[in-house]
Amino acid sequence: MYFGDGLKPIAEELAKKQREISVAEFFEKNKHILGFDSSTRAILTAVKEAVDNALDACEEAHVMPEVFVEIAQAEKKGVYTLRVEDNGPGIVKQQLPNVFGRLLYGSRFHAIRQSRGQQGIGISAAVLYSQLTTGKPTKVVSKIADDRPAHVCHLMINTRQNMPEIVEEDITHWDKPHGTSVEFEIIGKYLRDSKQSVYEYLKNTAIVNPHARMVFKEPDGTITTFERVAEAMPKPCTEILPHPHGVEIGTVMKMLANAKARKLGAFLQTSFCRMSQRTADEMCLKAGLSPNTKPEELSVEQITALVNAFKNVKLMAPPTDCLSPIGEILLKRALKRNAGQEIEFAASVTRAPSVYSGNPFLVEAAIAYCPSMPKDQQISIMRFANRVPLLYQQGACLMTHGIESVDWRRYGLEQRGGKGIP
Amino acid sequence: MYFGDGLKPIAEELAKKQREISVAEFFEKNKHILGFDSSTRAILTAVKEAVDNALDACEEAHVMPEVFVEIAQAEKKGVYTLRVEDNGPGIVKQQLPNVFGRLLYGSRFHAIRQSRGQQGIGISAAVLYSQLTTGKPTKVVSKIADDRPAHVCHLMINTRQNMPEIVEEDITHWDKPHGTSVEFEIIGKYLRDSKQSVYEYLKNTAIVNPHARMVFKEPDGTITTFERVAEAMPKPCTEILPHPHGVEIGTVMKMLANAKARKLGAFLQTSFCRMSQRTADEMCLKAGLSPNTKPEELSVEQITALVNAFKNVKLMAPPTDCLSPIGEILLKRALKRNAGQEIEFAASVTRAPSVYSGNPFLVEAAIAYCPSMPKDQQISIMRFANRVPLLYQQGACLMTHGIESVDWRRYGLEQRGGKGIP
Repeated sequence: MYFGDGLKPIAEELAKKQREISVAEFFEKNKHILGFDSSTRAILTAVKEAVDNALDACEEAHVMPEVFVEIAQAEKKGVYTLRVEDNGPGIVKQQLPNVFGRLLYGSRFHAIRQSRGQQGIGISAAVLYSQLTTGKPTKVVSKIADDRPAHVCHLMINTRQNMPEIVEEDITHWDKPHGTSVEFEIIGKYLRDSKQSVYEYLKNTAIVNPHARMVFKEPDGTITTFERVAEAMPKPCTEILPHPHGVEIGTVMKMLANAKARKLGAFLQTSFCRMSQRTADEMCLKAGLSPNTKPEELSVEQITALVNAFKNVKLMAPPTDCLSPIGEILLKRALKRNAGQEIEFAASVTRAPSVYSGNPFLVEAAIAYCPSMPKDQQISIMRFANRVPLLYQQGACLMTHGIESVDWRRYGLEQRGGKGIP
Repeated sequence: MYFGDGLKPIAEELAKKQREISVAEFFEKNKHILGFDSSTRAILTAVKEAVDNALDACEEAHVMPEVFVEIAQAEKKGVYTLRVEDNGPGIVKQQLPNVFGRLLYGSRFHAIRQSRGQQGIGISAAVLYSQLTTGKPTKVVSKIADDRPAHVCHLMINTRQNMPEIVEEDITHWDKPHGTSVEFEIIGKYLRDSKQSVYEYLKNTAIVNPHARMVFKEPDGTITTFERVAEAMPKPCTEILPHPHGVEIGTVMKMLANAKARKLGAFLQTSFCRMSQRTADEMCLKAGLSPNTKPEELSVEQITALVNAFKNVKLMAPPTDCLSPIGEILLKRALKRNAGQEIEFAASVTRAPSVYSGNPFLVEAAIAYCPSMPKDQQISIMRFANRVPLLYQQGACLMTHGIESVDWRRYGLEQRGGKGIP
């Protein structure tokens, strides 16, 4: 197809405009995907990302977390300074700009084990939002050992390249033996009395992280301390291999292409969990393949047959040491602390683990009843995933729908028509 | 903080795991963000992305679109072959692998004008989903002019690098003078009678694209033709400069850093729309800056003052030639064709444009009433953005809430309590 002059195909003209888009530019334009879709939510999301990182880092280093969250009114109206400080292991100088100044940079993306942050995107999205709304750099202080100096770095993100730009860096004295502090300014709205407030988020975080101590300082100076109710760290999570149930053909193809094992049988045993030699042989047999086939020689059809065989062989459920359940006792204890009033009844359950798409998961639930709860108000539902409170999109939440479908009138609660939230 | 042996800080050990995550790996793991969250939705999303591209390409080349969509049951149960063919300008050989085999690669990301696809992500996400679920490459045929051969390319995405991998390529004869055809296999569920079916999507697409002719072949062989009701292309959209109202500080900083103009006054006039010399001078005055300042010398504080001045100077609304409204007459005509029955009443409105975050937008709405509509069924609400039907998340839709809040009983419709969808 040619232009009017008939000299050059239109496609050649259009091709000139085609180019790579950086992931930072993409998320700058699509900030709603990352939770920065409104000025109230922006503050919550920024705090959440920093607190998630703080708790994850502490757990990786087996430190009882002490997290300090401070939100202060900045000089200009409508601008807030957010600071989150932890006592985690710190971040080495060379990696610090990458961790805070690049989207999709992290350590937990490929690991199959429970953690709060996984994508290597959250905290740099907060840095991005800060510079977009205020034009200012983010300040990070980090110290990795008592006998080393703390490293201070003011950085921004070069969105065109998705790379950090260090505005200023230095070393400094910090009383803490180790830890990280991140501080940014963002334009946002600070609301205290909302279901989706930072206060509510921290209160809920305390419930599912009974081993963490958190201190929160609000813009008006109010200080709230969430004391820990557990004196021991949760059992550390171990990274596991993928479970054969639920893996996709494309994933197996990629694993085969990067296989170190020379034979299919060995590949299966070293690449998946719950795969003994006997099971691997059975899989191969069902797929019509020899365990001695070279992994790189399998055709798409053979791989498809193999993945189908995965589904047709009974396997043990995946090991659960990649999960970090809170446990029934601590859940109850945390609920009681949270209620701050007499509880007549509390129950909790930690279910057996199951597997989805190769990833193990388990469900924990707890319920508490206080006789002094106001009768004319709805009960409060707290939802969590990976020890992180979920404060948005309750309408799309299966747990909420589950609660709504129970006839709570039998239990003496008020509920119009026996449906909905009592 | 040291390990038990006290020799090496833990942070140094943790740093070893930190690495870049490719955008393809990210979206492979987070496919729900791109609309591939269930096996029914996957088919719809894949078709939608290909049709969006087809219509956009035709409009860019000023061709009346002829789009052919075919969904066929593949050899294996639960696997479907999707093919979408257009008569657009085609894609040059060198760019074809990038367009289909890289996420975040495209031509419309930075342009401020209405188009369906913007992110350079949709069609490559479909390629990614296809290879993930079936392990197979995508086949693309494209021809850019009658006197050139068509180019055939079978490609996959190297997710670790977010780069295309060409499995096979060739030239071929194609009767069409120009156009593109894309074909992939995906594991999915094909449902015909659902509000969120491909059929429904194409029917709705026809309403807001009255200039397009679309033919749809379903797995059972049924062929539906959506004939065009407009014999002329929509007025082409022109790319515009950003409007000063609603731009963020970070965006202006980036524009200033890349400014070609040597003086602030000239920068303002050449970088924004609706910015005359008089307006630019007024902005500078309000911000306490001289129009002769060098753009690269502005401090963050000065840029903040400038962006605040943007908000305090009255400006003309942005030009609307970057938008492509359907128009009241065509909207009514399309609704009538769609109803396929006698319409007693139809009305439509195209509102004046407004601006959000520097981007102009306008609202169009139409309503039709057929006396023969079944009384015991809800009315049907069709929602669109940029001439693309919205079939998901109706619960979060403002237009739907608007309709629900009207007391339709006054208009003779049945509506319990005068609220909700009549």
